[in-house]
Amino acid sequence: MTLPALSRPTAVPPRDEIFAAHLGGKLSTGLSTPLSDERDLAIAYTPGVAEVSRAIAADPRLAERYTWTNRLVAVVSDGTAVLGLGDIGPRASLPVMEGKSALFKAFGGLDSIPLVLDTTDVDEIVETLVRLRPSFGAVNLEDVSAPRCFELERRLIEALDCPVMHDDQHGTAIVLLAALRGAATVQGRALGGLRIVISGAGAAGVACARMLLAAGCTDVTVLDSRGILVRGRAGVTGEKAALAEVTNPRRLAGGTDEALRDADVFVGLSSATLPEPLLATMAPEGMVFALSNPDPEVHPEVAARHAAIVATGRSDFPNQINNVLAFPGVFRGALDAGARRITERMKLAAAEAIAAVAAEDLAPDRIVPSPFDPRVAPAVSRAVAEASVNG
Amino acid sequence: MTLPALSRPTAVPPRDEIFAAHLGGKLSTGLSTPLSDERDLAIAYTPGVAEVSRAIAADPRLAERYTWTNRLVAVVSDGTAVLGLGDIGPRASLPVMEGKSALFKAFGGLDSIPLVLDTTDVDEIVETLVRLRPSFGAVNLEDVSAPRCFELERRLIEALDCPVMHDDQHGTAIVLLAALRGAATVQGRALGGLRIVISGAGAAGVACARMLLAAGCTDVTVLDSRGILVRGRAGVTGEKAALAEVTNPRRLAGGTDEALRDADVFVGLSSATLPEPLLATMAPEGMVFALSNPDPEVHPEVAARHAAIVATGRSDFPNQINNVLAFPGVFRGALDAGARRITERMKLAAAEAIAAVAAEDLAPDRIVPSPFDPRVAPAVSRAVAEASVNG
Repeated sequence: MTLPALSRPTAVPPRDEIFAAHLGGKLSTGLSTPLSDERDLAIAYTPGVAEVSRAIAADPRLAERYTWTNRLVAVVSDGTAVLGLGDIGPRASLPVMEGKSALFKAFGGLDSIPLVLDTTDVDEIVETLVRLRPSFGAVNLEDVSAPRCFELERRLIEALDCPVMHDDQHGTAIVLLAALRGAATVQGRALGGLRIVISGAGAAGVACARMLLAAGCTDVTVLDSRGILVRGRAGVTGEKAALAEVTNPRRLAGGTDEALRDADVFVGLSSATLPEPLLATMAPEGMVFALSNPDPEVHPEVAARHAAIVATGRSDFPNQINNVLAFPGVFRGALDAGARRITERMKLAAAEAIAAVAAEDLAPDRIVPSPFDPRVAPAVSRAVAEASVNG
Repeated sequence: MTLPALSRPTAVPPRDEIFAAHLGGKLSTGLSTPLSDERDLAIAYTPGVAEVSRAIAADPRLAERYTWTNRLVAVVSDGTAVLGLGDIGPRASLPVMEGKSALFKAFGGLDSIPLVLDTTDVDEIVETLVRLRPSFGAVNLEDVSAPRCFELERRLIEALDCPVMHDDQHGTAIVLLAALRGAATVQGRALGGLRIVISGAGAAGVACARMLLAAGCTDVTVLDSRGILVRGRAGVTGEKAALAEVTNPRRLAGGTDEALRDADVFVGLSSATLPEPLLATMAPEGMVFALSNPDPEVHPEVAARHAAIVATGRSDFPNQINNVLAFPGVFRGALDAGARRITERMKLAAAEAIAAVAAEDLAPDRIVPSPFDPRVAPAVSRAVAEASVNG
């Protein structure tokens, strides 16, 4: 039997159209105050601006009120893990970061600038952002390779008194949790009863595992390229070692075969192809989240032969798991609330808010809202701000 | 006799109006590509953007074409010499830098972001901007204290392969030269025949002296807080020592008294008050450029009793010497031409272009165009681009 090709015409527009849309970049700066005559100039620049500068010098907290920083997200990358392209460097990563900044504006109403760094040294990246701290209100880390991304995010959270989040980790985890919640509700099942397999122990895999555990999942097993993470596996250090301590309660060992047998949920975050025969060993009424982009670990139509619910990262199939459901509202809520940290509680609240929007119209092929559902970002923002204030 | 007060109502708008205009800052980011449906998203973000990133990875020069960097000026400050307020720090400087970024947009059609730095160490500032180099297309240094500003600008020009200019130095110098050219034309005199006194050997004073010399002035004398700069004066080092070598050809020594006697031109760049009796010792048909902001070294109406042409930095008197006549067009021209440096030749061309616009309507109270004259920025930009290509 021939499978339909992953429908490229919808998913990837024609090359010339893509390049035309990128000519001159995708961002611009604008004025939020008029500058068309002497009087405007005297208000927005000299001599009037001196009054505002004097006030901030006397009380630095006023910078949040009288500058753009409190709605400004820096999208920061060193270009080491860009989409599926890998370590292509800061210059080549910039179109992605501009796109991300554009999404912050379009979906969260936040201003955003890309800052791409010509260093991959964690110390240097932290030092650079500490020096630039007065210039922005929050940091969205993007496309930084694992395991450096874990240390970098941890160090930045310590060093900066503002919201910092590595979206490839936590944005993905938030939306996955929301989707899993939706899928479980459709099936009338509880999260705690699901056997979950996560393929991939990179940025997204680690964060998804931790988020699912925090949300009440109890049986999560993680695979890296060498097999199942299990306590005591040789040569496992850092985040993976820590993860082996809190996952895999049945002490499975081996590879994808062993992990998938009788599993209820497969979460693909590694680009490793998932062969159909293995899928067939999953428990009945399974769920497949094949999230690698642009090529899912398994074709969604193949997955649907064996699983009751199938989700991918693609817009040309149902159940698109897209980070844009989370990050605009998460940052907006954190900044609106004046939060200094994005806590686990805030991330869980974001996931619940997305799930709550989906709940109004839930179905096996509608476990998450569309990325363009205008209800999502305000709901997430509100939930995150409340969780911040009450946290 | 009572002088009219420097007319604050025009120059400094009411405090509440100023603060209201600064609420939430003065800048915003916008999208230059649509993001309203799945197809837009697939073009501007995943999966389409991967094509553009791949192309830049293969040929880094394409970043200029397919990102916003080639029209993006970073306005960089450490907040050490902000307006007349001094060392108020990066946070308090940010409203000024936002204003500057807004001016780049309004007058030069360039995008611009403020980057304020929480360090005053020259090594660290250079290092930070080198790491951020892939993020922008040019650097406008702003409000950095002397003498650090000289070393910082020099080091950045060496370290970055893009236009870098400290506007407090060169923007001021360009517009002063344009104004002096206009004034000399009004009077039918040559620059080479003028005895010129510059009060102030900070960022602007040093740059103005050098620019006037480059333009053909031969008799320039510079005063610092301790008197006339003259070869061999004790304790003079760095930029001032270098300046003492090339200025003051008649080897004047002493203070403002000695410098001003029979001088044709006074250029005030130091905030030091110029007493009227000293003004009276200048040569007939003198020119006074009292450029300190917001309070000129001498009230323009007092100056007018003794000088034929009077200019200030203020918008409520004739002949406003405002950097906005120069920097938007200078950076626009440099970026349009793909220049890697802003050379002396390009700065001279900018001054000539401003003077050429003024020449169409020259008078003693119209030696420079209005800052809002729409002919200026395009003329400067064209001249700078041409000087770059032919230089």
